[in-house]
Amino acid sequence: MTTTTTGQQSQETSKYDVVGTRPIRHDGVDKVIGAAKYGADIQLSGMLHGKVLRSPHAHARIRSIDTKKAEALTGVTAVVTSKDFPIIADKMIDLAETQGNARMMAEHVMAAGKVLYIGHAVAAVSATSPHIAEQALELLEVDYEVLKPVLTLVEAMKEDAPLLHENLTTYFKLERFARGDDTEVKSNIASHIQHKLGDVEKGFQEADVIVEREFTTQTVHQGYIEPHASTATWAGDGRLTIWTCTQGSFAIRSSCAAILDIPESQIRVIPTEIGGGFGAKITTYLEPVAAVLSKKSGRPVQVVMTRKDVFEGTGPTSASRMRTKIGATKDGKITAAQLWMAFEAGAYPGSPIGGATLCATGAYNIENLLVDGYDVVCNKQKVQAYRAPGQPQGAFSVEPVIDELAEKLGLDPLEFRLKNVVKEGDRMPNGVPHPHFGVREMEEAMKAHSHYQTPLTGPNQGRGVAIGYRWQGGQASSATINVNSDGTINLITGSVDIGGTRTAVAMQAAEVLGLRAEDVSPTVVDTDTIGWTGVTGGSRTAFDTGLAAIQAAEEIIRLMKARAAILWEVEDEDINFDSGTFICGKTEDTISFQDLSARLMRTGGPVTCSVSTASPGSGPIIAGNLVDVEVDPETGKVDILRYTAFMDVGTAVHPAYVEGQIQGGTVQGIGWALNESYVYDENGAMLNSSFLDYRMPTSLDVPMIDTVMIEVPNPKHPFGLRGVGEAPIIPPLPAMAIAVSNAIGVPMRDLPMTPDVILAAIESKGE
Amino acid sequence: MTTTTTGQQSQETSKYDVVGTRPIRHDGVDKVIGAAKYGADIQLSGMLHGKVLRSPHAHARIRSIDTKKAEALTGVTAVVTSKDFPIIADKMIDLAETQGNARMMAEHVMAAGKVLYIGHAVAAVSATSPHIAEQALELLEVDYEVLKPVLTLVEAMKEDAPLLHENLTTYFKLERFARGDDTEVKSNIASHIQHKLGDVEKGFQEADVIVEREFTTQTVHQGYIEPHASTATWAGDGRLTIWTCTQGSFAIRSSCAAILDIPESQIRVIPTEIGGGFGAKITTYLEPVAAVLSKKSGRPVQVVMTRKDVFEGTGPTSASRMRTKIGATKDGKITAAQLWMAFEAGAYPGSPIGGATLCATGAYNIENLLVDGYDVVCNKQKVQAYRAPGQPQGAFSVEPVIDELAEKLGLDPLEFRLKNVVKEGDRMPNGVPHPHFGVREMEEAMKAHSHYQTPLTGPNQGRGVAIGYRWQGGQASSATINVNSDGTINLITGSVDIGGTRTAVAMQAAEVLGLRAEDVSPTVVDTDTIGWTGVTGGSRTAFDTGLAAIQAAEEIIRLMKARAAILWEVEDEDINFDSGTFICGKTEDTISFQDLSARLMRTGGPVTCSVSTASPGSGPIIAGNLVDVEVDPETGKVDILRYTAFMDVGTAVHPAYVEGQIQGGTVQGIGWALNESYVYDENGAMLNSSFLDYRMPTSLDVPMIDTVMIEVPNPKHPFGLRGVGEAPIIPPLPAMAIAVSNAIGVPMRDLPMTPDVILAAIESKGE
Repeated sequence: MTTTTTGQQSQETSKYDVVGTRPIRHDGVDKVIGAAKYGADIQLSGMLHGKVLRSPHAHARIRSIDTKKAEALTGVTAVVTSKDFPIIADKMIDLAETQGNARMMAEHVMAAGKVLYIGHAVAAVSATSPHIAEQALELLEVDYEVLKPVLTLVEAMKEDAPLLHENLTTYFKLERFARGDDTEVKSNIASHIQHKLGDVEKGFQEADVIVEREFTTQTVHQGYIEPHASTATWAGDGRLTIWTCTQGSFAIRSSCAAILDIPESQIRVIPTEIGGGFGAKITTYLEPVAAVLSKKSGRPVQVVMTRKDVFEGTGPTSASRMRTKIGATKDGKITAAQLWMAFEAGAYPGSPIGGATLCATGAYNIENLLVDGYDVVCNKQKVQAYRAPGQPQGAFSVEPVIDELAEKLGLDPLEFRLKNVVKEGDRMPNGVPHPHFGVREMEEAMKAHSHYQTPLTGPNQGRGVAIGYRWQGGQASSATINVNSDGTINLITGSVDIGGTRTAVAMQAAEVLGLRAEDVSPTVVDTDTIGWTGVTGGSRTAFDTGLAAIQAAEEIIRLMKARAAILWEVEDEDINFDSGTFICGKTEDTISFQDLSARLMRTGGPVTCSVSTASPGSGPIIAGNLVDVEVDPETGKVDILRYTAFMDVGTAVHPAYVEGQIQGGTVQGIGWALNESYVYDENGAMLNSSFLDYRMPTSLDVPMIDTVMIEVPNPKHPFGLRGVGEAPIIPPLPAMAIAVSNAIGVPMRDLPMTPDVILAAIESKGE
Repeated sequence: MTTTTTGQQSQETSKYDVVGTRPIRHDGVDKVIGAAKYGADIQLSGMLHGKVLRSPHAHARIRSIDTKKAEALTGVTAVVTSKDFPIIADKMIDLAETQGNARMMAEHVMAAGKVLYIGHAVAAVSATSPHIAEQALELLEVDYEVLKPVLTLVEAMKEDAPLLHENLTTYFKLERFARGDDTEVKSNIASHIQHKLGDVEKGFQEADVIVEREFTTQTVHQGYIEPHASTATWAGDGRLTIWTCTQGSFAIRSSCAAILDIPESQIRVIPTEIGGGFGAKITTYLEPVAAVLSKKSGRPVQVVMTRKDVFEGTGPTSASRMRTKIGATKDGKITAAQLWMAFEAGAYPGSPIGGATLCATGAYNIENLLVDGYDVVCNKQKVQAYRAPGQPQGAFSVEPVIDELAEKLGLDPLEFRLKNVVKEGDRMPNGVPHPHFGVREMEEAMKAHSHYQTPLTGPNQGRGVAIGYRWQGGQASSATINVNSDGTINLITGSVDIGGTRTAVAMQAAEVLGLRAEDVSPTVVDTDTIGWTGVTGGSRTAFDTGLAAIQAAEEIIRLMKARAAILWEVEDEDINFDSGTFICGKTEDTISFQDLSARLMRTGGPVTCSVSTASPGSGPIIAGNLVDVEVDPETGKVDILRYTAFMDVGTAVHPAYVEGQIQGGTVQGIGWALNESYVYDENGAMLNSSFLDYRMPTSLDVPMIDTVMIEVPNPKHPFGLRGVGEAPIIPPLPAMAIAVSNAIGVPMRDLPMTPDVILAAIESKGE
């Protein structure tokens, strides 16, 4: 285990030639000079422009849509409504309303029967210019029967709440569940998830101190810079080609195939560069719409969202209500914890409640545990994944309680955490035993860090300490390597590059082959051109696609050994490979990778290979924050004085990128804690759907985020990588809340902590 | 061996499920409805337009180029001359002038020092619109010192001819060679090739009859529909991306790397659809120019040729002069042959003299043979490959002599040919023994055919019989297969699809995997995305890339067997595969390819593989023609009454495409024989550089070409394929010449046989 602070050379990786260095990213220049092609940069001859009409009502029945006037407008080539989606038009009755089914996906893309949130797509138009398409939207006449909207978790979970989905059945409803009645009922509760370890009642009986608190968070958006943009051409041969900015070209292929009811093999998805996604560019919004518009128009169609479309028509993450009760003995051992969590799913089932319930207590060994989570629909945007989905909320509901317990027990907060730290073999909430990872090492590094050792210096200052835990699965990835005659290689993957994974993956292949990172030309290709590859998400790409690249590189060595054997007229087994050189075990002849590459044509032709690998899952990851804040008692404004973000990164393949992930995730977490939220009016209309009004942190709002990388190599990866993309966003919510609470002396349990909220809290002290 | 006439089901292929059927081509609909993207369809944001200034002189020294006025024109972003090509600017002195060197390639792309033909590129301009670029060309001031041009073979080969390349050395000059003097001399003769078998003098002494004749052909163009179009973006990171209509993306990558003096790995070539190439879209013209314009402008640049640019600035095939002497005994055995062939190379060395000398006598077993070929530069367009390069001219110089010998010996022309037919083990002119192929089978089929058995019916009619032989090498190809969860596959290759090879290759993979052709989605990808793959040319793609696809499909079966073994908990070796079904040898469980495809994620992840294969070369191929013509004695116009084209196709993977190749090649050969030629004025200016004046056959000029496919499976391919793209163009030149000669009673030994030429021949009879 080694620790490395921002910009330093990692000790852990010094045994590698490429892993652990900081080469310039392969796609860097293109992105800096503006040559990289994003979703809206696609241009095709004869291309039309599409626009989407969105619902002005949060909950309404669509009585009819009159498209005649729009269709008659010169320049309009097609108008599309849900009737143009066969899965909606033909299969409405057949399909059960369960999470993730194709009809719900389709209705999410184009409302059928009912609109379920303000911003829900109702119809779309294609025309020869974007302006004509916009004009045509105004000519569409939709007759709505306005229904009462259900806008909050509390309202949605009421027994007599209006139902969004009239056939949505769930096995539990709160009150019934409390009575032990688990008959199927119709409600807005889409699903219930429960984890149980040991005997929670017995655990609380053994506790000397018990703390129970409630927490809320509001709807926040991922805030990626690039609005969604999709272009489709669906010509007469049935083959559909889609260019889109997505985190997962194969995921878009699958969902479009389901929504359009055609085989996946008829669809080619070409991912463009992507200007941020953070989880929200996995689902499909525009692709099927552009496809159907193209089919009806007989020409390519491009649809690009405005910022307002993005805020109102795509998925933020869940607002949540959570209640946490934890008990501990006098000597600091946690005896039991009970968590209750309700997450807004928005208009359709599917909040990140699973990630929240599994991970909220993950940093601690709690033998008696009961976690209940509820996925609740309401008349707001259907939520989507946002970096470590559900886990920032989960940590926010646990860490302040841990802190309060430590205080009550007279223990240092990190000391209390270390007393209960999870270790190899301890069970996760789902009963699966933990492998070894660097949670203890990180907490000890935090405790020993100069930041923690340095006392606060002034009034109205507070320090926050918090830990964020996450469990990471994986998906399959594919990689192809082609060897060029000059000894460089082309590395092909299907993993969209959001955070530098072209280079992080290329470095792993280079390490295996004894090449420089610059000798690898990494390209992200479309779904026709590479084996199936899961989304870039879940912190998995450098890990999973890295494994595929490593396996492909090893296969290249095997194939090249056979060529050296031909050259030297020996057996394949006589050839060894070390640091880019092939060595004959018999004659001690050597030839470099480069020189052998130049001789491939004379020894049997080019060398190429493709592999697909299943993922072992990269496993647990831990992040921790130390933050000092000062609150202006006059205005409630929070200044961050110092911020140190820790993480067990396994092995930092490209330390600068890992630092960037830590810093970026931390700043997003700070925004979530301090400023960000969707502000709705009483009808469910978002009042702040622009980057001017939806307040994300800017460089002026945050100090330099110091990073400390703890490297406890992951045994599931040859170079020890973990997935580092998401965990950094988890601890900032509780760390900031604890710091502000400490600064003002009032516990802060509702986010965001905007100046007016803090001021009100300060003023409440006197009451 | 089976024979199949146009549109019939082949007998030979009935043992296959897919090979031998006629599925709709995968790219068909796109091409029919206009959705396919050709070279000029590429659109990039910020794209500029380039135009090329071409020389008005056939031979001149460039004293200076003043680019100032052009550069000052509003909208002009860059002006490029040979000074912008480092290989020309820096390495002029270092490089020897030998065929194919990088500097010559570069000078061919952009003249340096001298212009060598009218149409030679001298400078290029990029601007915000094509019109501004054209305007800017007029502002370029080139100061030429006009030199005496060398426009014909006879002139060019004269001892005192002006030299095109002042340092071009060759080891032979005709007169010196005749004297046994082989010292190096400077001349316009770029190279000499000689094949020698046995003792030609002794052979002629044994002959009872000797015929010796001279033949000429003129410059003809491939006449592809799509003009050259290239787009390049060469951004600040040094990586050059090129979209271009080419027959070989890797060939363009190599030549651009050489001309621009950068590593191949820095270049990505994305091939567009291609509207015909016939050999002429292998070389580079516009790509390096667009690249340098882009580099200087900092934006993408597209350059598209006009038809006049294509005729004047690209490479037609060689004009030729040939003398053929063949002797035979009374009983019809050929005892000796001597061939002398001189081919125009145009401005730079490199005519198809090699193909001509190797193949001209290939259909016959001639024990005593001497063939001399000369590659001669002159002030005309640098010639490029044209379908079976050099072989139509070669056959044209041999077949009429064979016919005349048969007549003199009182033998049926096919009987005489069969007496001398080449057979397995007979030596090629280069001494290599022939494998078995269907030359005898084809000639017997011709002899037995109703066409041959049906006498001519009227005056002024004549019949031609001719054979065309070709030897086909090969190049490496790569293929990648990705298995989709619905049991379809994506098949990736780097072979540009000119004549239906997407489908012809997909069918071979489908045959191996027990799938339908429609279950394979074949895609042609760029140089970054697939292993090295040679050009689509030399009739090699269905054969070589087919072999790669077959090998990849076999590897997929191996990988899928391992998955079935996991499912059934047996060993990989226990699994058999037959016609799309995996069978457990132990339990007799079965699972279809489709069903197993759906279970890949549960048995280890996706299945993908990439392979590269060296080519064994598809070997010899033979084509034969029977043609009946009627000549109008008043006008000299030739009407083709009946045309039957024969070929040993090995196995017809997609019979309709093979028929298409036979028909297309035949019609091109007819055009060459009857109408086509560059008409030059005395300064070397082409007078007919439009499709109105350059007279290619239209559908009104030719009857239905009946095809007869002889199938003698090629032992070098699992399904028996041969390369069928080129051989059909070989026999029409001699067949038409013999037919017209027979119709008018005057031997026709100079092409093209335009009406005025035929009329003059008819009129010469009375003299």
